[in-house]
Amino acid sequence: MKEVAVGIDIGGTNTSFGIVDREGNILAEDSIKTNGSGDIVSYLEKLSQNINKRLSSLNINSNLKGIGIGAPNGNYYNGTIEHAPNLIWKGIIPFVKMFEKHFPDIPISLTNDANAAAIGEMVYGAAKNIKNFITITLGTGLGGGVVANGRLVYGHDGFAGELGHIIIKRKGRKCGCGRRGCLETYVSATGIKRTVMELLSNETVESELRKINFKNLNAKMITDAAKKGDKIALKAYEMTGEIFGYALADLVAILSPEVIYLFGGLANAGDFLFKPVRKNFDKYLLPIFKNKVKILPSGLQGKNVAVLGASALVWQELNKNTGL
Amino acid sequence: MKEVAVGIDIGGTNTSFGIVDREGNILAEDSIKTNGSGDIVSYLEKLSQNINKRLSSLNINSNLKGIGIGAPNGNYYNGTIEHAPNLIWKGIIPFVKMFEKHFPDIPISLTNDANAAAIGEMVYGAAKNIKNFITITLGTGLGGGVVANGRLVYGHDGFAGELGHIIIKRKGRKCGCGRRGCLETYVSATGIKRTVMELLSNETVESELRKINFKNLNAKMITDAAKKGDKIALKAYEMTGEIFGYALADLVAILSPEVIYLFGGLANAGDFLFKPVRKNFDKYLLPIFKNKVKILPSGLQGKNVAVLGASALVWQELNKNTGL
Repeated sequence: MKEVAVGIDIGGTNTSFGIVDREGNILAEDSIKTNGSGDIVSYLEKLSQNINKRLSSLNINSNLKGIGIGAPNGNYYNGTIEHAPNLIWKGIIPFVKMFEKHFPDIPISLTNDANAAAIGEMVYGAAKNIKNFITITLGTGLGGGVVANGRLVYGHDGFAGELGHIIIKRKGRKCGCGRRGCLETYVSATGIKRTVMELLSNETVESELRKINFKNLNAKMITDAAKKGDKIALKAYEMTGEIFGYALADLVAILSPEVIYLFGGLANAGDFLFKPVRKNFDKYLLPIFKNKVKILPSGLQGKNVAVLGASALVWQELNKNTGL
Repeated sequence: MKEVAVGIDIGGTNTSFGIVDREGNILAEDSIKTNGSGDIVSYLEKLSQNINKRLSSLNINSNLKGIGIGAPNGNYYNGTIEHAPNLIWKGIIPFVKMFEKHFPDIPISLTNDANAAAIGEMVYGAAKNIKNFITITLGTGLGGGVVANGRLVYGHDGFAGELGHIIIKRKGRKCGCGRRGCLETYVSATGIKRTVMELLSNETVESELRKINFKNLNAKMITDAAKKGDKIALKAYEMTGEIFGYALADLVAILSPEVIYLFGGLANAGDFLFKPVRKNFDKYLLPIFKNKVKILPSGLQGKNVAVLGASALVWQELNKNTGL
C-alpha cells in the first residue's frame, strides 16, 4: 500500500492538484477552474469529486495520508483564506472546515502558496538538510518563505514571509496593497515590465520592446530580447538585480540564512537575473556575512512547485505529529 | 539548595556579572575592567576569582547551574567572540573554551548582547508566553533579537538579528560597519545625536543644543531639552520615530511578531520616541497586519538587562536539554 498525499494549488484562474508520494513523484494530476461556478460550495463539490476520481483511477493501492493546500492569503493557523485580492471569494473563507465535509477522516492543512513552496524545498528539494533558508517565488508578485531553526516561520498571525511587501523605496511605485515602493513592484514579472516602461521613457536607445504594449509584454519577452542584446532589456535586468541584491542583503542581516532559493518565471532568466543580483548582494552585504550565503535556483525549478509544496505540507504535519 | 546562574555582560569598558536565581533576582553582582590588564589570560583569571568570591560570600547554600555570557559579536554556535570592534581582543577569541578551564564542570554558553536581552525577556520578562517577538536594544548602536516559533533565531552562522544594519537609506549616513545608511546611524543614542547635528545645520530656530558639542551631547540631554519644548530636540525625536516606524513595519512583513519590545537608553524617552514610532509604524504597516502588533517597553526596562539576559541563557539551555 503506497502512502500518498494530495497537493492542491489554488490560483485566481485554475485550481491544480496532484497525488504525490513521499519522494515527490506526482502520480496523477488534474485541474479545475477556480471560478467555474462562482459559488464555493459547488466548487468544493467538484474539486473533491475530481480528486476522488483520480485517486481511484491510480493503478496502485494507495493510502491517502492527508491533503495540503496552497492558497493566496492562506492562513496556516486557522485554515482560512483571508481577503485574497485575486480570488472571487471575498472576506474570510473557512476553507479547511468546509473541505473537511468532503474528506471527514483525512487531515487537511492549508498555507499560503509561497510558504508551501518553502516546505516543498525542505521536503523534496535542495533544502533537505538545511535549517535556515529563505525561498523567494518570482511570479506576478514576489512571495517569500522563511525557515529558521528547521521550521517555517508563520509568525504570530500566520502571515509572516510577506517579503514582496518590504518597502524598498519610500514614495516609490504604487503597489496592489495600497502602499508605495514595495519590493514586488520592482522585483517580479510585473516589476520588470514596469522597469522596462520606465527605461523606455527615460532612454532614447532603440529596442524591440518599444513595439509591445504594457498589457502584452511579459517577462519571457524581456528575457528573449536580452538574449539578443537588446539594451533596454539588459538594463532592466541590471536594475532588477540591483534592487533585489540589496533587499536580499538586508534579509541576511535579519535572518542569516545559509541559502536563498529563487524560483518562478523570472528565475528562469538565469544569469541575466542571477549575475546582477549576486554582484549587488555582495556589494551591500554586511561584512560578517561575506562569502557565507548562497543564492541558488530552487531544487524544484521546472517542476510543479505549487502542487508539490502543498503536498509537502502533509508529510511535514505527519512528521511533526510523530515527533520526527 | 538554591539553584543559581551567573550572567556576564562584556562591554568595551566594563565586564559586569551577577548571580541570578530562576526568578530573575540578582543575588549578588560586581564588575571588573574589561581592559584592566590588556591580556585576556589574566582578565579571565581575575573574572573567575571575582565570581568565585561572590558565590562563596552568598549567605545561602547555592548550586551553580551554569554561566551565560553576553558579548558584542558573540557567536552562540562556536562560543567565540569574533572581530568585536569595541573590544581590545582582536580576531576570533575562543572565549568559552578558555573560560572553561576556570569552571571545568559548569556548562558555559555565550551569545551576543542583543540576543541575550531577547532571551532575558523570554525567561524573566514580558514575553514569557509569547512565541513570536522581536527585541530591540537602543544603546550606542541598535541591537536586535528575533524569536520565532518560541526559539531565538541565530541563523546559519550565529549572527542573525543584526537589525541595526538593515540599510534604511541608500547612500545615507556612514556606519561603523563600513557601509552607509544602516538603521543604527539614525535610530540609536548616536543616531539621534547625528540627527540633532543635521537639524542644527538645516534649521535656524534657537535651541539649547546649539551650545553643546557633538562629543559632549548625549541622548538624555536631547530628552531633557524635548521636555522643555526645545524645537530641535522635539523634531529630532520625530525624525527618529519616523525612520524607526517604517523599519519596524518592514520587519513585521517579514516576521509577523506579536510584540516588539524596545529597551536601552533611548527607550527611556517614553512618548517622545514611542508616539512618532507608533504613528509611522501604523502608517507604513501592510494592511493585513493592522492592529495586530504591539510596540512596548521591555518588561526588564530599568533592570540590569545585560546581566539578566546572559544569565537567562543558562536556564534556557537547561530547559532545552531536559526537553521543557
